[in-house]
Amino acid sequence: MKMLIINGPNLNLLGRREPGIYGNNTMESCLSALRERYPDVEVEYFQSNSEGDIITRLHDAGFGGEYRGIVLNAGAYTHTSLAIADAIAAIETPVIEVHISNVHAREAVRHKSLISPVCRGVIAGFGLASYRLGVEALMD
Amino acid sequence: MKMLIINGPNLNLLGRREPGIYGNNTMESCLSALRERYPDVEVEYFQSNSEGDIITRLHDAGFGGEYRGIVLNAGAYTHTSLAIADAIAAIETPVIEVHISNVHAREAVRHKSLISPVCRGVIAGFGLASYRLGVEALMD
Amino acid sequence: MKMLIINGPNLNLLGRREPGIYGNNTMESCLSALRERYPDVEVEYFQSNSEGDIITRLHDAGFGGEYRGIVLNAGAYTHTSLAIADAIAAIETPVIEVHISNVHAREAVRHKSLISPVCRGVIAGFGLASYRLGVEALMD
Amino acid sequence: MKMLIINGPNLNLLGRREPGIYGNNTMESCLSALRERYPDVEVEYFQSNSEGDIITRLHDAGFGGEYRGIVLNAGAYTHTSLAIADAIAAIETPVIEVHISNVHAREAVRHKSLISPVCRGVIAGFGLASYRLGVEALMD
Amino acid sequence: MKMLIINGPNLNLLGRREPGIYGNNTMESCLSALRERYPDVEVEYFQSNSEGDIITRLHDAGFGGEYRGIVLNAGAYTHTSLAIADAIAAIETPVIEVHISNVHAREAVRHKSLISPVCRGVIAGFGLASYRLGVEALMD
Amino acid sequence: MKMLIINGPNLNLLGRREPGIYGNNTMESCLSALRERYPDVEVEYFQSNSEGDIITRLHDAGFGGEYRGIVLNAGAYTHTSLAIADAIAAIETPVIEVHISNVHAREAVRHKSLISPVCRGVIAGFGLASYRLGVEALMD
Amino acid sequence: MKMLIINGPNLNLLGRREPGIYGNNTMESCLSALRERYPDVEVEYFQSNSEGDIITRLHDAGFGGEYRGIVLNAGAYTHTSLAIADAIAAIETPVIEVHISNVHAREAVRHKSLISPVCRGVIAGFGLASYRLGVEALMD
Amino acid sequence: MKMLIINGPNLNLLGRREPGIYGNNTMESCLSALRERYPDVEVEYFQSNSEGDIITRLHDAGFGGEYRGIVLNAGAYTHTSLAIADAIAAIETPVIEVHISNVHAREAVRHKSLISPVCRGVIAGFGLASYRLGVEALMD
Amino acid sequence: MKMLIINGPNLNLLGRREPGIYGNNTMESCLSALRERYPDVEVEYFQSNSEGDIITRLHDAGFGGEYRGIVLNAGAYTHTSLAIADAIAAIETPVIEVHISNVHAREAVRHKSLISPVCRGVIAGFGLASYRLGVEALMD
Amino acid sequence: MKMLIINGPNLNLLGRREPGIYGNNTMESCLSALRERYPDVEVEYFQSNSEGDIITRLHDAGFGGEYRGIVLNAGAYTHTSLAIADAIAAIETPVIEVHISNVHAREAVRHKSLISPVCRGVIAGFGLASYRLGVEALMD
Amino acid sequence: MKMLIINGPNLNLLGRREPGIYGNNTMESCLSALRERYPDVEVEYFQSNSEGDIITRLHDAGFGGEYRGIVLNAGAYTHTSLAIADAIAAIETPVIEVHISNVHAREAVRHKSLISPVCRGVIAGFGLASYRLGVEALMD
Amino acid sequence: MKMLIINGPNLNLLGRREPGIYGNNTMESCLSALRERYPDVEVEYFQSNSEGDIITRLHDAGFGGEYRGIVLNAGAYTHTSLAIADAIAAIETPVIEVHISNVHAREAVRHKSLISPVCRGVIAGFGLASYRLGVEALMD
Repeated sequence: MKMLIINGPNLNLLGRREPGIYGNNTMESCLSALRERYPDVEVEYFQSNSEGDIITRLHDAGFGGEYRGIVLNAGAYTHTSLAIADAIAAIETPVIEVHISNVHAREAVRHKSLISPVCRGVIAGFGLASYRLGVEALMD
Repeated sequence: MKMLIINGPNLNLLGRREPGIYGNNTMESCLSALRERYPDVEVEYFQSNSEGDIITRLHDAGFGGEYRGIVLNAGAYTHTSLAIADAIAAIETPVIEVHISNVHAREAVRHKSLISPVCRGVIAGFGLASYRLGVEALMD
Repeated sequence: MKMLIINGPNLNLLGRREPGIYGNNTMESCLSALRERYPDVEVEYFQSNSEGDIITRLHDAGFGGEYRGIVLNAGAYTHTSLAIADAIAAIETPVIEVHISNVHAREAVRHKSLISPVCRGVIAGFGLASYRLGVEALMD
Repeated sequence: MKMLIINGPNLNLLGRREPGIYGNNTMESCLSALRERYPDVEVEYFQSNSEGDIITRLHDAGFGGEYRGIVLNAGAYTHTSLAIADAIAAIETPVIEVHISNVHAREAVRHKSLISPVCRGVIAGFGLASYRLGVEALMD
Repeated sequence: MKMLIINGPNLNLLGRREPGIYGNNTMESCLSALRERYPDVEVEYFQSNSEGDIITRLHDAGFGGEYRGIVLNAGAYTHTSLAIADAIAAIETPVIEVHISNVHAREAVRHKSLISPVCRGVIAGFGLASYRLGVEALMD
Repeated sequence: MKMLIINGPNLNLLGRREPGIYGNNTMESCLSALRERYPDVEVEYFQSNSEGDIITRLHDAGFGGEYRGIVLNAGAYTHTSLAIADAIAAIETPVIEVHISNVHAREAVRHKSLISPVCRGVIAGFGLASYRLGVEALMD
Repeated sequence: MKMLIINGPNLNLLGRREPGIYGNNTMESCLSALRERYPDVEVEYFQSNSEGDIITRLHDAGFGGEYRGIVLNAGAYTHTSLAIADAIAAIETPVIEVHISNVHAREAVRHKSLISPVCRGVIAGFGLASYRLGVEALMD
Repeated sequence: MKMLIINGPNLNLLGRREPGIYGNNTMESCLSALRERYPDVEVEYFQSNSEGDIITRLHDAGFGGEYRGIVLNAGAYTHTSLAIADAIAAIETPVIEVHISNVHAREAVRHKSLISPVCRGVIAGFGLASYRLGVEALMD
Repeated sequence: MKMLIINGPNLNLLGRREPGIYGNNTMESCLSALRERYPDVEVEYFQSNSEGDIITRLHDAGFGGEYRGIVLNAGAYTHTSLAIADAIAAIETPVIEVHISNVHAREAVRHKSLISPVCRGVIAGFGLASYRLGVEALMD
Repeated sequence: MKMLIINGPNLNLLGRREPGIYGNNTMESCLSALRERYPDVEVEYFQSNSEGDIITRLHDAGFGGEYRGIVLNAGAYTHTSLAIADAIAAIETPVIEVHISNVHAREAVRHKSLISPVCRGVIAGFGLASYRLGVEALMD
Repeated sequence: MKMLIINGPNLNLLGRREPGIYGNNTMESCLSALRERYPDVEVEYFQSNSEGDIITRLHDAGFGGEYRGIVLNAGAYTHTSLAIADAIAAIETPVIEVHISNVHAREAVRHKSLISPVCRGVIAGFGLASYRLGVEALMD
Repeated sequence: MKMLIINGPNLNLLGRREPGIYGNNTMESCLSALRERYPDVEVEYFQSNSEGDIITRLHDAGFGGEYRGIVLNAGAYTHTSLAIADAIAAIETPVIEVHISNVHAREAVRHKSLISPVCRGVIAGFGLASYRLGVEALMD
């Protein structure tokens, strides 16, 4: 079973960026823990600051059944990118939207997600564990 | 380890109500599966159609550390009850907000949650598995 | 043929409350006249100030075909209760929304009904005769 | 006892137009049934696609007590014609607003009625029976 | 002279709940001090988390002149309950709206009170002394 | 010097319609007084309840310099007719917008005029004298 | 092959009205050129300033397959007439919405079209060539 | 007969300020012409850039019948000063609102007048002749 | 103990202005009664129609502890003056906001107070007794 | 004569993506048909999922007269990219906005185009024929 | 070269007022440093809490070329005074808008400046150095 | 001392693009003048039309103290890119927002900056001198 985790803009700074909001752990340690816990699941990882590259990556993983599912943290593009939403709607692979922080407890501009309506489900607020919960949701 | 699952208005009709949105399974089978999977977790269940009774139940379970956490599906009160939000903010036990359906893919009135800002995390869209994911999130 | 009339909050004060808006007649005289006019129709009556109790009453009368229909004046909950709207959508028995006064000629907050979209029809502005018209609409 | 039924724009297409919303019956059969049921009531009928002609007809029937009341389905003008609302407010004959479909369950633009505040009452959602209920409301 | 103090949802937690906003004192000590200061005033107290029960209590105390007035802190229902506002408008006993904290200095959702327009006056921001000022306002 | 006064929908009822707002005088007496006061000004009068007819009349009087100006009370079309606004913008003859009542002291829907931006000037609130002031404004 | 071009209010002034926006050509020369270019297409033309007459014309051409399609420039009614939108939805003949100017580059009130959602397609901004493009779109 | 003309902020610059909008004439020449035309009317003039001074001047002229009326061009305070509106509502002398330019054809912020609802009438768009029309409206 | 009462625009007209809203008593009698009731409290009084003068008076009384507190009725500036709000936030002396009428029961423009968030508390709707309650709130 | 067709995000999936909305044809067959029909027109094609690359391509084709015009389907960027709108405004080559589906009949977020105001014209709703109509509009 | 610095309401409290936002330095030390740095520039200073006095000072310095420019920190009037904006638009001397704090990082009411559109430029967020940057911008 | 100037989309066209808004000078001449004036400051320059590349460049320059500060003109991304705002908030190097034109005097969509709240300060409206003022602000 293969899964893809996609991280959007600024999430390459995890561990360095606003630890009060995003915590001190890095994505690397999160991925290691995940792979250790579920050795049968092949977890691929992709990060980009570019809206277009995220769309293209979604297309590539979106057809043919190679991936069981995609766990997507689109970062700020969650709230501004109708194009990523269109990509999710266009592909066949199911997508789970995750967020590290509880976006609803932050500024108003982060309360509205453009991609939620086209995702299978939403998981937010559990720190890096949000990714693990997203993978587990796809496993069943 | 003890946990409390609270269901709000109309969720007593699960399995009978709009199966296209809420599925065919009942809450009973969901609870049985959960207890079987995690025999060490004592799962209590409470359902009420009354906003006031939900608040009182939150108060009762909210102090003294009896419960590790609360998994709350407030149903339609999610979108209208500032009083339940106040109760969550007032108690000490952490609360996870869950939804069976992807509320963001439904009518606009269901896009705004009054309780999200005071919950630890949000899980939506995974059918009855949303409850299980909520319990798992509290276990770690 | 059995029908259920449900009255929401403050409608127990009919005849005492703001006669300029709600008239001088009581609900009792309205029910008597209705039963006299249609002796073949068994008219049950339920009033509550509690949102949760109205929801539970809708559930109880909502399945199994015991009632031909429900005539509901949800009072102020018309404009604030998404949970009552969900209950109406969830049950099988048809519901007619009625109002004593012409709500559209009153304050702006009373112009928006949350329950209209899930009711079969709406009747407003005919004083206590609104209930009788609601019953007649269900009879055909 | 004389009553006037006025139908606004596109309602001349009843029976031909979007049967999913407006049903298959024609206005003619509705009027026949009504006249048969209440032989003592003289029911006049007027249809126009023109806002101005509807206003003029309201003026003509609005003074001197010739008509007991007017049953008005203003169609799309319900939501856009402040001028028809002014006409209703200006005349003495009472006007009942009716709709075939439940306008509140349709698109947002049809949720706001400009004429409701100046009508005696509103009846919506009962198919062509809405006209009959409007006539009955005026009879009492 | 008899007066009624009504507290809405979550106010049973006073002294336990968010002391930064609501202070450390309990309602009991507030009532004792009040009764000591004004021995001629009989102060009754009612708290409920249920919207419907508050409405029913307002009805019971609202007619016949038993109470000189009602001091009401409706908590979060202040901002969501049109039904409580209707109850206040329907009864004869005057009602004073009070708040412990300065609601206008808190989140936007707490800036709009549905009950202010039907209360005699509003007192907010003086901690538990708001209740005392409310009683004093009714005494004159 | 020739001028044209155009009255929109329902203004044929002047003297009969809501005297509290529109006064008891008729348009005829207003026109007589105006013609007597300014015998050198030829005052033509046109009233219609039809938006289309008002547009056509504006076209007819709008080119070639036959009329010094047009005094227009568009009634409710003031607030809904972009097409009349377009007609005013399209013609060469200057148009003065007049209102009998002070529209700004009435309901919100009457606060916004679609035609004001394309009229030379606006005169409102002086009863039937508004027409006379409009004519005088055009005379200079 | 027969087609119908309908022009709404003020479009009878083409060539005279605001040439900066609408150009210097007349509708007559546009129709001549069109008929010359496509001699096999019978192009009928209808213009009216009246909303009701446009609706009636749409009804007349809307059933029975006489016309391959309708090219409609509803002028200002584009933005205010829900009744014309209803007529388009009610008929069977396909309707193409055209505009001479780029309405999106003009005032905000012209950015919202009530008829776009029920038309097959929209063509705007090409001067009188918009009509020709509309006809060509219907030809295929 | 005595009248008072009050000019608000920046209107002391008339003749110097944005001639494209306000014209080249000065207030002095306007007053001279007015006094010459109506020698029986004593026209007083007051200009201030201070909101408070305008309020005080309105108070001074507002009681006792010394002035037949007040012609007020409140300039930008028209759109921002609820306090001037309160002053107009508080006094007995009638006030006419005038504007030199057609405020409705300017920026959106100038479309809303806070003082219109409490003035007797409104005259806008006639250049300095607006003042003369205001005086004439008060004379009758 | 020294206190300062500040009254904003138009409040110099108390007793003369709209008695239906503001009552018949004058500020003088209110101050006398207050001084008589609390002879140990030195009550200073300041009224101005000028926003700037109120700000300067707040500055003068705002530092050094001369005054125990300030009771401020900012009149219409309550709703429009961010500068007075800034002055209150800048000074050290606590400020109580008072209103004679229940502003929430009046027009919408009076529902939003710019100064509430920076005042210690708010008292509204008790007629001139609002000032006395404000003073009493500061005494404790 | 050379023309450039630019397709925005997700339009590389044409033929695979939501055929109910976008049809079954591919862009390749559309381009072939176009080149066959107009052999004298050199049609270049560019597709990108990246906002920045589309801007750069617009710059490259925007000066020097190499291209007669650009036919742009900006996909979801139509509704979110002010930067593409700025690019269109900055270049000299005329741009035609096209859409495959009737965007006005889809969700609200697709009703507002940021680029329409700076394009020469708009063509929407004709399937892949929209591109051909765009090219034809540029040919004249 | 002569320049004028104008400070609006509450800015006379600089150094005393909310040091967390406005810093500890006084305007005097800012002016001294500025005069020392640019001895050839004659810097005049004016502060007032009165909107009207600021307008009058702008008029006095606005014509005849005495001043090279005006650096204006209008304080809270930035967000509420259309009259000051009108004064800036009316005068000839260029005006630079400055702010000590980054107004965009503060409350929403401070995000909208009424005077920005009529100023030459805006400088915000540099503490008292904003004034110096404003003067430097005018020097070139 | 090293500084970085970042220019966003379409700013590579400076000197070619809409000279009425952006002037005739090129960025090159601006940079030369800046380097000549401040030879001790090493000014680096980066331009991109891609949102993702700007984010990545901000990351690269945002840690470790290599740069004293960043002067950022994000062009249209100023108003649409929450992701760039997140990047600025995430890095340590201070960022100054600059604009060539006075964005507040342009269309409404350009009045709201998403990045202002996370920048140290804002400078707008001084043509290319805005960059120099930004550098000078960082030098102190």
